[in-house]
Amino acid sequence: MVKVGIVGGTGYTGVELLRLLALHEEAEVVAITSRAESGRRVDDLYPNLRGHYELAFSEPDVRQLAACDIVFFATPHNVAMNLVPELLQAGARVIDLSADYRIRDPQLWSRWYGEPHASPEVLRAAVYGLPEVNRSSIAGATLVACPGCYPTSVQLGLIPLLARQVVDPMHLIASSASGVSGAGRQAKVDNLLSEVADSFKAYAVTGHRHLPEIEQGLSDVAGSPVALTFVPHLLPMIRGIHSTLFARRVDTSVDLQALYEDWYADEPFVDVLPEGMYPQTRTVKGANRCQISLQVPQGRDTVVVMSTIDNLVKGASGQAIQNMNIMLGLPEDMGLKQVGLLP
Amino acid sequence: MVKVGIVGGTGYTGVELLRLLALHEEAEVVAITSRAESGRRVDDLYPNLRGHYELAFSEPDVRQLAACDIVFFATPHNVAMNLVPELLQAGARVIDLSADYRIRDPQLWSRWYGEPHASPEVLRAAVYGLPEVNRSSIAGATLVACPGCYPTSVQLGLIPLLARQVVDPMHLIASSASGVSGAGRQAKVDNLLSEVADSFKAYAVTGHRHLPEIEQGLSDVAGSPVALTFVPHLLPMIRGIHSTLFARRVDTSVDLQALYEDWYADEPFVDVLPEGMYPQTRTVKGANRCQISLQVPQGRDTVVVMSTIDNLVKGASGQAIQNMNIMLGLPEDMGLKQVGLLP
Amino acid sequence: MVKVGIVGGTGYTGVELLRLLALHEEAEVVAITSRAESGRRVDDLYPNLRGHYELAFSEPDVRQLAACDIVFFATPHNVAMNLVPELLQAGARVIDLSADYRIRDPQLWSRWYGEPHASPEVLRAAVYGLPEVNRSSIAGATLVACPGCYPTSVQLGLIPLLARQVVDPMHLIASSASGVSGAGRQAKVDNLLSEVADSFKAYAVTGHRHLPEIEQGLSDVAGSPVALTFVPHLLPMIRGIHSTLFARRVDTSVDLQALYEDWYADEPFVDVLPEGMYPQTRTVKGANRCQISLQVPQGRDTVVVMSTIDNLVKGASGQAIQNMNIMLGLPEDMGLKQVGLLP
Amino acid sequence: MVKVGIVGGTGYTGVELLRLLALHEEAEVVAITSRAESGRRVDDLYPNLRGHYELAFSEPDVRQLAACDIVFFATPHNVAMNLVPELLQAGARVIDLSADYRIRDPQLWSRWYGEPHASPEVLRAAVYGLPEVNRSSIAGATLVACPGCYPTSVQLGLIPLLARQVVDPMHLIASSASGVSGAGRQAKVDNLLSEVADSFKAYAVTGHRHLPEIEQGLSDVAGSPVALTFVPHLLPMIRGIHSTLFARRVDTSVDLQALYEDWYADEPFVDVLPEGMYPQTRTVKGANRCQISLQVPQGRDTVVVMSTIDNLVKGASGQAIQNMNIMLGLPEDMGLKQVGLLP
Repeated sequence: MVKVGIVGGTGYTGVELLRLLALHEEAEVVAITSRAESGRRVDDLYPNLRGHYELAFSEPDVRQLAACDIVFFATPHNVAMNLVPELLQAGARVIDLSADYRIRDPQLWSRWYGEPHASPEVLRAAVYGLPEVNRSSIAGATLVACPGCYPTSVQLGLIPLLARQVVDPMHLIASSASGVSGAGRQAKVDNLLSEVADSFKAYAVTGHRHLPEIEQGLSDVAGSPVALTFVPHLLPMIRGIHSTLFARRVDTSVDLQALYEDWYADEPFVDVLPEGMYPQTRTVKGANRCQISLQVPQGRDTVVVMSTIDNLVKGASGQAIQNMNIMLGLPEDMGLKQVGLLP
Repeated sequence: MVKVGIVGGTGYTGVELLRLLALHEEAEVVAITSRAESGRRVDDLYPNLRGHYELAFSEPDVRQLAACDIVFFATPHNVAMNLVPELLQAGARVIDLSADYRIRDPQLWSRWYGEPHASPEVLRAAVYGLPEVNRSSIAGATLVACPGCYPTSVQLGLIPLLARQVVDPMHLIASSASGVSGAGRQAKVDNLLSEVADSFKAYAVTGHRHLPEIEQGLSDVAGSPVALTFVPHLLPMIRGIHSTLFARRVDTSVDLQALYEDWYADEPFVDVLPEGMYPQTRTVKGANRCQISLQVPQGRDTVVVMSTIDNLVKGASGQAIQNMNIMLGLPEDMGLKQVGLLP
Repeated sequence: MVKVGIVGGTGYTGVELLRLLALHEEAEVVAITSRAESGRRVDDLYPNLRGHYELAFSEPDVRQLAACDIVFFATPHNVAMNLVPELLQAGARVIDLSADYRIRDPQLWSRWYGEPHASPEVLRAAVYGLPEVNRSSIAGATLVACPGCYPTSVQLGLIPLLARQVVDPMHLIASSASGVSGAGRQAKVDNLLSEVADSFKAYAVTGHRHLPEIEQGLSDVAGSPVALTFVPHLLPMIRGIHSTLFARRVDTSVDLQALYEDWYADEPFVDVLPEGMYPQTRTVKGANRCQISLQVPQGRDTVVVMSTIDNLVKGASGQAIQNMNIMLGLPEDMGLKQVGLLP
Repeated sequence: MVKVGIVGGTGYTGVELLRLLALHEEAEVVAITSRAESGRRVDDLYPNLRGHYELAFSEPDVRQLAACDIVFFATPHNVAMNLVPELLQAGARVIDLSADYRIRDPQLWSRWYGEPHASPEVLRAAVYGLPEVNRSSIAGATLVACPGCYPTSVQLGLIPLLARQVVDPMHLIASSASGVSGAGRQAKVDNLLSEVADSFKAYAVTGHRHLPEIEQGLSDVAGSPVALTFVPHLLPMIRGIHSTLFARRVDTSVDLQALYEDWYADEPFVDVLPEGMYPQTRTVKGANRCQISLQVPQGRDTVVVMSTIDNLVKGASGQAIQNMNIMLGLPEDMGLKQVGLLP
């Protein structure tokens, strides 16, 4: 059995790691840390785990974590970048679900996160954990930076168009919508049910922190700079991201449906829907899956791509486990066969 | 008191007309028709109306309706176009909340609604009931075609940009999202709570019936053809439309915030928000109001406009009453002063 | 115009007072206090109020408040009991929406609220503001303690049974369910959308603070002690309380439907539904109304009463305004004619 | 592999069987019938199943079904009772999720379902499929009648009290609340999102069809007649049942917490929570589990039990698979280890 440690396990990506790993045939969670909840059983905080874990939260302990085969960071940004260097030196392999190692350029990171990066030397060694792009680098990595939730849905939706250069890369548009769990489990008035139920709004229109991450990933694929107008919205529900993507076609000779089906033919967790079927967040709820469809309305020159994921699974904890499987040479879908919970 | 008749009052726009007219100082509903519910009290079907109405649904009766000062059609499309000619001849003034008289070209209507238009001669006389564009024509009209819900939010959001020709009119994008009440009160599996709660999806991506209506209205304002990529989405909630609009700036010399504030300065029901405040559907819930804000992310050449309405109020019954007030020379906001229900 | 002051206006009962008073023909809000938001416009915090108020929050100022005809306290418990004595001395009339003056016995209050009562001498002068019981005392009161939300729905549902002594008063059961807005606008993890959406649970089963208030009110009506098993539940929605009440009949000779209809025949805001129609929280959403129905299943000896209110209206701010109208000799329904927002 | 057939697979219990069986190590669905959707792939109707099934719906065919090891009926009532006799004769073993074989007395069945029972002779052979009561009979049964959703939650909550005779069996009260998926996937106005979102109501107060089923089951356990006042309510969400149960203690010498913990100590799917922790529907969402807690408020004589299940899992398809495992001698929890989806 693979020994797994989780740093910062009280948030939603933490409990989601526990939910998924409970059924993973080869992984066993041996440590989960939380300063605030140290000593409390995980199934006392999250009663859905009763019967699945005997584990309690503990104070972070480098030696204990270093003894794990894999350590997940399910922390807010600014935690991993301070602890990871020591863990790497102690020989651990780390999968960071936070934003700390997603952006290669520490100055760019700094500009968006408002503080200097604490471990730029490690930053350079981190592999961006989008398996559909970086599978082979992930396999050998000691530090994997799991993509953000929006970046996963937007990149998977746009990659074929940019890689094949069939659209104008400088005028991409993403109108994305996320469930509230993306905002985490912090006590904030803004995320009270009474504030966000029964309503819909855009936010962070001037610039969301996921923007530079998306542009970095898409530029890599396009081989040239890209510019994205990214407008995230908040949905009155818990889980799910739906990205509606717009791009101007510059090459109309390509059969886009065939392009997407071919591009993702061998991907276990990207599902290109048949023409005319559109994705819904509910069909991927609880599942490690991205469903994508596309359309060119009225046969004009704008292509519309729709892409859905569960932000806590393919957008976070599921993708992290997918990366773990790749790093450890396990079957990539081990522990990740859950069917979406519908209805 | 103004005598009001309502044809087809069992749907959501019907009950919303009743809700709003219950507090209208000068209007009295004297007849409300429904073949299916004939004889049943309106407050038996809609118990929120108890204590406000003694009225029962009745079979449609042209003489009774013609005796009204104003007749609202709160019917599905294909009803008004068959009954309105007779009512107009009998001297009634009609406000149609359905799609029958919104599109000037009967062949275009036909193409989108899949049947010939039943009264093209009357179609020509209909005034499109968006007061912010056609107020003076509405005042003298005998037949007003109330705009659709999406068209209201999209047009109010884009009009200043197109009228002042600061954006490319041939590549407009609308990513709109609506509560489920927009689909009406028909018994359809697709609109069951278990099908649409907790989920989000795009629909009608190849072409929604509101598209030609929006393009017609925006072309009038722009003075030239426009092309819109329009993607509607379904929100897991009852009321509210949020449109996120994208346009490419061709003239960057204009102060867009000032443009919008000036354009709508005298409009009682269009509220341009201060810079940095974004609209939410909840702040207009139950109110006859459109809230708008705009932003140019990263100072690039794409402008983003956000526009919200309550689809049943400013997107339907509230706008219809606004039109009635204009037609009858009443204060335009009479009966329409409700404050949005927040939280 | 009546001059109104509001202490602690940033919470949900505060914004609800503003929503309702915006359309009140005789009242004008001249001051609204908040230490935290002092200087901020109310419509900046609550954009649904844009166009209805020019007011900003201000620091509490006894002289300014004392100059008002009516001062509402929309504060958490433990605020009013410290400030009200001074205001009363300065000649103000006060309506307290918090729990501070609801329980006559200061020691009982102390036991449930965990601290000594700060102004027991004033407590004795307070009138419990349930108009259906205390209308005439309210008219002459200088201090009115508005009932809690659960207590309003439970008492209105049980009063006729207890007053007429047709049920066993020592084995009453209330299974109540409330929307999350009842928990207020505090930043608590427990009330995040991600914690309470899509779920249902009982809470405070060992004893909710509203229990002694309910038992006090029902004892008064019954003329003898009562004992209630009260289990509150949290609904995954914003507004509304539904109480399902169970009582054992000791006198089966009474026609219960007739009893309820007669009892509330003259009450403007209590609506006894016809036999076979059950209340829903949506039919009273946004309205100052309690809808009640009852049933004796299988003709056995247990009577079931269902009672619904909007917790923020008849359960708080609407009832407070109803009390204000009574105190000032205004028509009791002034400003309270809103129709429930359905759908 | 066990060959499984499903009759009537287009409803919510059908898709839930498919979701759960997709990960069952020993079962393979070889046939799923639907007259309406015959020929359509199951993953076209339910895209969450894409990648998990190649199966299409087919016309019901007795020979094909009889060749299965187990046939599930996921049909409305009145279907199974007509088809099951033939299947049993052909040698199939049947698990009926509908109401047709739950009530032993065909005349009682008839009174509640409004028509004669079509196969009373088979009715007598059916075993009521509540494993916590009938495990050994289920093991040898050819026909198992799966309990209804409410009956599962109410019975599991009350059984220890009645079996140990610590409460008055003639005055039981169940105030239950269910998500809307319990009403199935029929096109009914009453279950539209716009009708039931954001609201809460009681229904079927005069008598719900699950009442005789519950009373039959509880009488068996009590060894004497029982009388239950059962009030179901509709929750504005998809999945989950919460039953709040009230009973009058006649024997106060029993430690109720210990009684429950002992009673269910060996049950894999009944989880008695520690004192002071209350169940929530979200902690069992998607999981085959019943969570129970109890309390005696104010130390009076009324005991309150809270019991939650996912109506589609432990209340339907999960319990059906649990029965299948028992019938086939498989580990009882095979394919049923899913962790509740929280948040």
